[in-house]
Order: sequence, then C-alpha cells, then structure tokens
Amino acid sequence: MANITEPRTLSGFMELLPDRQVIFDKIRRKLEDVYSLYGFYPLDTPVLEYSEVLLAKAGGETEKQIYRFNKGDTDLSMRFDLTVPLAKYVAKNAGELTFPFKRYQIGKVYRGERAQKGRFREFYQSDIDIIGDGELSLVNDAEIPGIIYRIFTELGITGFTIRINNRKVLGGLFELFGLGGNEAEVLRVIDKLEKIGGEAVKEELESLGIDMKAASELLELLTHKRSNAETIEALRAMEGRSELLDEGVNELAVVTGYMSGFGVPEENLRIDLTIARGLDYYTGTVYETMINSHPEIGSVCSGGRYENLAGYYTNRKLPGVGISIGLTRLFYVLNENGWLCESRRYPSEVLVIPMMADNCTQVSDGETQSTKNRVQRADYARAIEVSEYLRGRGISTQIYFEKKKFKARIGYADKLSIPFCVFIGEDEIKEGNLSLKNMADGTQEKYSLEECAAAIKKALADTGSAALVKSL
Amino acid sequence: MANITEPRTLSGFMELLPDRQVIFDKIRRKLEDVYSLYGFYPLDTPVLEYSEVLLAKAGGETEKQIYRFNKGDTDLSMRFDLTVPLAKYVAKNAGELTFPFKRYQIGKVYRGERAQKGRFREFYQSDIDIIGDGELSLVNDAEIPGIIYRIFTELGITGFTIRINNRKVLGGLFELFGLGGNEAEVLRVIDKLEKIGGEAVKEELESLGIDMKAASELLELLTHKRSNAETIEALRAMEGRSELLDEGVNELAVVTGYMSGFGVPEENLRIDLTIARGLDYYTGTVYETMINSHPEIGSVCSGGRYENLAGYYTNRKLPGVGISIGLTRLFYVLNENGWLCESRRYPSEVLVIPMMADNCTQVSDGETQSTKNRVQRADYARAIEVSEYLRGRGISTQIYFEKKKFKARIGYADKLSIPFCVFIGEDEIKEGNLSLKNMADGTQEKYSLEECAAAIKKALADTGSAALVKSL
Repeated sequence: MANITEPRTLSGFMELLPDRQVIFDKIRRKLEDVYSLYGFYPLDTPVLEYSEVLLAKAGGETEKQIYRFNKGDTDLSMRFDLTVPLAKYVAKNAGELTFPFKRYQIGKVYRGERAQKGRFREFYQSDIDIIGDGELSLVNDAEIPGIIYRIFTELGITGFTIRINNRKVLGGLFELFGLGGNEAEVLRVIDKLEKIGGEAVKEELESLGIDMKAASELLELLTHKRSNAETIEALRAMEGRSELLDEGVNELAVVTGYMSGFGVPEENLRIDLTIARGLDYYTGTVYETMINSHPEIGSVCSGGRYENLAGYYTNRKLPGVGISIGLTRLFYVLNENGWLCESRRYPSEVLVIPMMADNCTQVSDGETQSTKNRVQRADYARAIEVSEYLRGRGISTQIYFEKKKFKARIGYADKLSIPFCVFIGEDEIKEGNLSLKNMADGTQEKYSLEECAAAIKKALADTGSAALVKSL
Repeated sequence: MANITEPRTLSGFMELLPDRQVIFDKIRRKLEDVYSLYGFYPLDTPVLEYSEVLLAKAGGETEKQIYRFNKGDTDLSMRFDLTVPLAKYVAKNAGELTFPFKRYQIGKVYRGERAQKGRFREFYQSDIDIIGDGELSLVNDAEIPGIIYRIFTELGITGFTIRINNRKVLGGLFELFGLGGNEAEVLRVIDKLEKIGGEAVKEELESLGIDMKAASELLELLTHKRSNAETIEALRAMEGRSELLDEGVNELAVVTGYMSGFGVPEENLRIDLTIARGLDYYTGTVYETMINSHPEIGSVCSGGRYENLAGYYTNRKLPGVGISIGLTRLFYVLNENGWLCESRRYPSEVLVIPMMADNCTQVSDGETQSTKNRVQRADYARAIEVSEYLRGRGISTQIYFEKKKFKARIGYADKLSIPFCVFIGEDEIKEGNLSLKNMADGTQEKYSLEECAAAIKKALADTGSAALVKSL
C-alpha cells in the first residue's frame, strides 16, 4: 500500500491495551451483576439525540462542551450524561412503564472539555435510579448505600466510606442560623471545607456578609467528628425549631437506621453534614463515596434524592433517587496507582498447545502439504477435543495453532498471563493423557482429561479471591 | 414547568422498553460469555475518530452515510463499523500486542441511512477476529464455526445452518471455466442465485458475455445438493487442473474436517459453493449463517478470512479471520416475529412485599409519622433481611416499599413478570416464616427463610432451559 495513514486516536478518548481492557470489562460486569441482583432493569438509550431535547435544560459550561452538529437538516447532539436521556425516556414512555421504575445504565457520554491528564472527552458513566410516579418511599434511599457497599466490597475495595447527608438538614440549619438567603453561596463555601480548611471557610463566609458567630456555630456542628448516632442526637437536640430540619433529621435517621439491615457496617457509612452535592437538583438524601486512604481522588460514587426527574419533558411529577459512578475516571485512577489486581488480566484460563513437530510425516494441517495428505494433525484434533471438554465445564480455553518454536508458544501464554498450559505431544497422545503446567509455580504434571479439568478448577478456586482491585 | 419540550427519540435509533432491553442485554451477555470462553479479549474503541483515519479506505455509499462534523478545528466522524477501528488499533499498537491477537467487540456503529422499518442508523455489531502477524494458521478458520454454533445453540436457536465456502475454490473454478476476467460480475450474479433462481442467473451471465455451456456446468457444480464429503469429492475430481482450486479445496477440506471436533454437527454446517461475501476483502474461507425456516432474513452472522487487515495504516502484513453479527438487526427480527422467550423478560427473580398496614401504630417509616416514632417498620426490616439473604445466594431480589393497595403491589410483580413473590405480614413475622407465591402456577406456601431460598432455587432450576430464543 503506497499511502499509509497514521493510525491515531483522539486525545481524551480512552483506548486501552488488551490486558487493561479485560480488567475494565470485568469491573463493568461486576457493576451489571450487582445492579441486576437488586432488580434494576438495564437501559440503553441512543448516543445521539435531538439537540432541542438533550439541551432542554442545559446551559452555560455544559452547552459549550457538547458535541453538536447537523446531519441533513437535523440538529443533533451527543449525550453528555445519562440523566437527561433517562428523563426523556421516562417522560416519553411513562404510560408504558411500571413504577417505581428501577433502571441502570452503563454507557459512554461525551464532553469536549479541555484535554488534560485524567480528564476524558468520551467516558463511561454507570448510573442507577429508582423513579416513582408522584411519590417514592424514603426506604429506597436506604437501599442505595447497600448497593454501593456491595459493589465496592465485591470489587475488592475495603477501605471506603459512604458519606451521607440530607439537604433538608442543611436547609433547616441555614434557617436556624439565619443564613437562609445565602444558601447557594454558603453551600459552595462549605463544599470547600476539606480542601481549604475551617479557618479559610470562615473567612469566606464572613466575606459573604455572614455573622461570624453563626458561621462558627454552624461549622462546629457540621465538622465535629461524631458517630452516626451522636450526630442524629445532636440534631435531635434542636427538634421543634425548624420544620424543615426536623423533617430532614427524621429522614436521615430512617435511612441510616436501615443500613445495618442492608449489610452496611457503621465504619463504611458516615453521616457527614458538610456534603451538599448539586445545588439545585438534589432535595433530600445525598451521597458521596471516598477511598479512605486517598481522599484527594474525591468522590468516586455520588448521588441523591431529587424531587422531579423530568420537569422539562412532562407535567407528571417523577421523584427519584440515584447514584452515578464515573467508571472511566475510577478505572483510570485505579490503574494509574497500580491498584488493579494484575492476576485477573488474562483473556483465558487455559492455553492448549499442540506439540507435535510440524514436519511430522503422517499428518498434515493442509496448509503446506499436498492435497494427498488429508489426515488431520493428531495433536490438533486432540487439542480441539480437550478444549471443547474444558469449555463445556466453564473453563475459558484457547488453542495455540501457530507454527512457532516452543519458546514462542509458551511465551504467548506468559505474555497473556494465562495461568495454565496444557501440552499435547506424541507422548501424551500415545498415553492418552495431558501435561498440565501451572504457570504461576512452574509445576507440570500428567493427568487424564477429567483429572486435568478438576485440577484446573481446584487451582482456580484456591486462588480464591475474585477481587479486581487491591484492598484499599 | 411552563415550557415542556416533547421527549422524542431520533428515528432509526432503537430505544427499547425495559422488558425488551432486559432480553437484549441477556443476549449480549451470552455473546460475551461465549467469546470469553474461547479466550478472546474484549476491545473497546472510541465511537469518534479522526475523519482522516476512519475514512482512509472508505468511499462512495459508505462515506455519504457517515456522521461527520467539526469540533473546533478537528474533523471528526462516528464509526460506521468495528473493522476499521480494529485495523487502526492493531496497526497503532502492533508493537505491544501479542499475536495471534484474538479480540471481540460489541459496540454501536452509525450509518445515516434512509430510515425505514428494520433499518437502523445506530446499531450494535458484535465482531470477533483472530489477527496473525505475517501469517495465521488455517485451523483458526475451523474454530470460528465452532463459536457460531455454540452461540446460536446456547441462545436456544436450533434450526440454523452455517454455510461455508472458500474464495480460492470460487476463483479456481472461474479459471477452469474461463470466467477469470469477469470474477467480480460473475460473483455478484451468483450471489443472487437464491433470490432470482438458476435460469435468471444464467441469463444474466449470458448478458455478461459468458459462454452458456461454461455457465451451465458451473451452475450445476455450484448448486447441486450434496453432502459436504460429496462436495469435497466432486471438487477433488478436478484436482491438478488449477493450483488455486486445489489450494482452496484443500483449505475447505481441512476446515470442515475439524468441524466435528469443534462440536458442530454436519446438519449445522454445509459447504455452499455459491456464497462469496465481500468482493475485495475476503480471500479464503467465507461464512454465512441462515435460520433454516426463515431464509428471507438473510445471513445473521457472516465473515471470513482476509489477507491483510490494516494495509491503510501499516506496512506490516496482518492476515486474519473473523465474523460479525448484526446484533440490533438480529434482535429486531427475533422480536418482530415473536421468537424471543418471554419467560426471560423479568428484571429480578423475586419481589419481596412487606404487608403490614401502613397505619400500624407501633412502627414508623419516618415519612409521615412524627419524629417521636423512631422505630423501624418490622416488615421493612424483615424484608431487607430476607432480600439480603436471597441476594447472598445469587437470587436477584427487589423489595416493594411503596404504600399502595395490595392489588398494586402484586400487580407490580405481575407487570414485570417476576416469577416469585415473598409476602411478609404480621403473621409471618410472628411465626418467623415467609409466604412464597409462585406467580406462574399461583401456588402459595409458608417456608422458613432457608427453605424459601431452596424452593426458589429449585423452581428456577426446574424451569430448566436458559434459552433466550424460541427453538427456530
């Protein structure tokens, strides 16, 4: 070919090498498995939508980042999150959906942000939402942290904290401390608490014209370390002074009250009165999830309760609660820090290697021999038989058919981190057995086909943990 | 909200209702499972690429259909298949890949075709390819039908036929019958055989200026029904007259020779000398897959052997073999014809329904009661405990927390086709047991939690078939 085009990939678009992609996909599957275990429907909406529909609500920064274009006379945009498509979907199909509608969606979204390390223009979001028709029981808010807990635990992450708060608690406290009119600004400043510290926050609050005494009292309440029960108690002490506060405290008490039932230990769920999340979207419970040893990463899984999902598309009131994991960013962080379990990066558990010499006279694989030699290669035939047997027992197996030196064949297993090799040479065919090599410890033994499958199954089970992420 | 935007979806963009999507996703998972069982890596390339890269080869019809636009000063296009991105990926990363490189990719592709029933502008392709570095063993060509067979069988489809041919056989026959110069036209005409019949094909061949005797002989050879062995024998009878033919026949014999080893019965694999597939891409083995009772659907899974994957991006010779399933179209056809197994459309296996009266005085769910009542609802707490137990045993379970009449609660399970309901009322809590209702036969019995899980597991296992498609 005379003209060679350089095979480039757009910057900001994650394209992984195979041994990374296989772990990424195992993580994605784990999320799907857990969502399904809780009865969430999968949902798959188009990547492209009418710009008019997708941008019904958007504005400012978001709109500038949109991939938007015309095809014919249609104004199209690529989705920039999975919430707007969900709102459109539920509004469009409300008559045919059964509520509460529980769905998960794991899909790519697009934002033309300035390219920089760790920021992506195409990235996966992994969302779950429970949408009610008119109303939605508060107990659904308690199930969400149960799902987060199971996901992180099953991925192998142990040291994480789900932070929970309630916007009504914050709103009630603002009322009590006379900060009502400044809610948005105060929240924005308080959100920076962890980054800039209490003193700087107080200064910023003062510059907003807020009474220093009130600011101090509020900050003490918000930031003093307490157990969940103590926090509820501290809030209960203010009972009767603000209806909004009382309602929020009660909600927080109910949601955290069911936590142990959902299997979430106290150390993994902490009431944190400083978290606020989105300013105009969430109205009740809010969640964040932090890796304890790495707070600098920020929240890896966030969400909350909202009063109305789809006000831009329907007059039907659709309250909901949900969380979102920025999957591409989470994977990027795990990978960059070396926190992925490298033992899970293989594409198959077994490589079967036919070992007879390629110039073996009584056989032919048909590629180079004359058409007179119609016999199958005995080691290929046996390799196929063995592989089918193993696959039938759920063991992922591939065969190395290429004519390469032994070193290249075993090197293939090695490079792909395949944990087991099965060798089939003339001896094994004569004896009706197989040589099984455990690539991890280098041991090699002869087995019957049945024994071989059992030995592989046992060894895979013994390696135990299906964790995809190192314990953080 | 004053301004309501109509929640529309673009035409030609499949957006399924939940009970369809859940089956679609189970089919997609089955494909992933089978590909993984054979050791294929997953691959995930961007939806957007530089237009210059994506369109290095394209032209004519394809180029007109591309979704192409500028963002800033970058000329971007949405991918229109998964082959070009694979070629780019392998060329770009050749130095870091281990060959043979086996990958699958299930992803959305975009073609702005004229919208019509059953034609999609956004649709899933599901591709597998095995790419060699310089060379690739022919036996890989034999593995591909083994994978197709397993996929269709595990989906539940029984009456299907994988048709196999070899382009060298066709080429050799053309040589022998003196049709060499007209190869492309002749192939195009022969491709229409099933649609227009033998006589019409002969007429078209004649209009191309082809000798009628040669056309008749060729058509007899191509279309006479024979067993695979008889076809090979008929071709072997011409041995020595065309090197290309001999090579092709030998390849065909080797590939079909290994078929029974890969578990593919003779009735599911037929040598069909009339299939040709793409005119300039495939160079050896070619495959098509037909639903026996519905030939009008055309091939649902096609592919073949090619000499060079990425000639537009690299001078490295990368031969390969692969197949592609048009997943969105296949699903559309299965659904439109009522061939999907409706019994698999549930999002969870169990719905747990707390049954205590909502005005029960000794409990509160915190939503409407005063903050004085901090007790959890006993039926909610038990429902959560039961659900966690069932989920821990791999049983997909959701809880109905909404305050609705009994009819609405059971109606939820009914509408979602959830096969089991667990009721938890005051009696069950007092007695420490559960009422399990089998929604299919309407039976209801009381069980302990352990018995309940066992009964559900047994009933789910008894329903047996995990088929997603009715036997076709």
